[in-house]
Amino acid sequence: MPILSDNKRYTYALEMNVRDYELDAEQIVNNANYLHYMEHTRHSFCAEAGLSFAEMRMRGLDPVVRKVEVEYINSLRSGDHFLSCLKLERKGARFIFRQDILFPTGEYAARGMITVVCLKDGKLTRGNELAALFKDYI
Amino acid sequence: MPILSDNKRYTYALEMNVRDYELDAEQIVNNANYLHYMEHTRHSFCAEAGLSFAEMRMRGLDPVVRKVEVEYINSLRSGDHFLSCLKLERKGARFIFRQDILFPTGEYAARGMITVVCLKDGKLTRGNELAALFKDYI
Amino acid sequence: MPILSDNKRYTYALEMNVRDYELDAEQIVNNANYLHYMEHTRHSFCAEAGLSFAEMRMRGLDPVVRKVEVEYINSLRSGDHFLSCLKLERKGARFIFRQDILFPTGEYAARGMITVVCLKDGKLTRGNELAALFKDYI
Amino acid sequence: MPILSDNKRYTYALEMNVRDYELDAEQIVNNANYLHYMEHTRHSFCAEAGLSFAEMRMRGLDPVVRKVEVEYINSLRSGDHFLSCLKLERKGARFIFRQDILFPTGEYAARGMITVVCLKDGKLTRGNELAALFKDYI
Repeated sequence: MPILSDNKRYTYALEMNVRDYELDAEQIVNNANYLHYMEHTRHSFCAEAGLSFAEMRMRGLDPVVRKVEVEYINSLRSGDHFLSCLKLERKGARFIFRQDILFPTGEYAARGMITVVCLKDGKLTRGNELAALFKDYI
Repeated sequence: MPILSDNKRYTYALEMNVRDYELDAEQIVNNANYLHYMEHTRHSFCAEAGLSFAEMRMRGLDPVVRKVEVEYINSLRSGDHFLSCLKLERKGARFIFRQDILFPTGEYAARGMITVVCLKDGKLTRGNELAALFKDYI
Repeated sequence: MPILSDNKRYTYALEMNVRDYELDAEQIVNNANYLHYMEHTRHSFCAEAGLSFAEMRMRGLDPVVRKVEVEYINSLRSGDHFLSCLKLERKGARFIFRQDILFPTGEYAARGMITVVCLKDGKLTRGNELAALFKDYI
Repeated sequence: MPILSDNKRYTYALEMNVRDYELDAEQIVNNANYLHYMEHTRHSFCAEAGLSFAEMRMRGLDPVVRKVEVEYINSLRSGDHFLSCLKLERKGARFIFRQDILFPTGEYAARGMITVVCLKDGKLTRGNELAALFKDYI
């Protein structure tokens, strides 16, 4: 995947296909499903890089989405194949996932920035425990 | 609903209930479902204020989401009842829906800003046709 | 609601509206969403009749769907208003929800039969604890 | 995949992974999502075997689900990998998809039977046109 060859741009990518039930009456993937694609990509990244969400919960860690910003550039349609890419940054207690969805041509379908914080026993943490798990990727 | 009594704040509100299938494994409403709530609120508003999305499509008008920004403040959970409120503004070709989701106490569950543009025959319009339909609400 | 006046036919009904994000590219409500409507109806019934699902889980009771059979008769479309009705029967360890979705005219959109069993601490129960909660409705 | 080596049992299989947003508050894949998995499998099969759903619609053919029967045997959970398999039969105007979801061990997660009919210009067809497209698989 040439998109990933410049490894400063993204640290993780998942190849995915549009599923027809994700389309809405306008024949394009419904805007909410992009958040699903991005969540699945974050969770796959976490499972490969350190710890799955199920394991995090068993340790009492609860990552929660605080903010999403998604720009929709070119609509995904039936039959489309795409790459869901991410790069992780930390800003204090906040983990910022820069998440782009690209066509195989390299054109953007959507660009997102998802802010996640980590709760422990229902309280906001400073994120150190989570950061330690992903130290090679931040 | 006292939240709506100050009618400069919101122009439309819908009472809704969390449905259990909208929860995820963290026992909170999954982040993508807030976009569903907001979309349903926009579409209900459009149907009441002027023209339903099905009717827009029959006239060749295709409103498309260009950008979403949602801040998640207090998680919605099983059994929660909430108000999904909106206020519409126009900025040139862009229609900005300020969309808040509130608990009956007036506390925020989430705050959003959804940018919509209008296509006609697949091309971006200046939005005049759509604006004319909603002229009493912008 | 005249549909409910003959109370031998259904014990519970919920008025619902199609939400546009539930449509698929064929402009009809996607078949999986009927299961969502039916689940939401079962959970609303349980919360009103006895105990919510969240409360059941707190008591260690875990109702689980074992079988679904749904016949799709007339497609639900954008703007449709409908009634989601149920009647509960018990057959030993199995709870059978007969669930119909009807247009306001009384015509069927879909007819379903959903079989639920109750687990406790991960093991199948004989259903007596759950049946006691709903004894006025079975 | 040994499951497919006996080609009388299934004609098509897709490898899939549970995505965490498909889980519900009981930490298992929500029952409606099995219909999504099965639909995606049918559509992938159709695209490979003959004609995608988008292409069918362009020819005026509209396959519609008439009936679903699904037995849930072992719940799918976070991190699970599975095979979604199908075998197609024709009974007059009805196309019967026998669809099983299996763990890599060969154990069943769910077994389904999905009945599809084909509309043309909104009217029920005898299915001959659709059957011709899939003649090598029925």
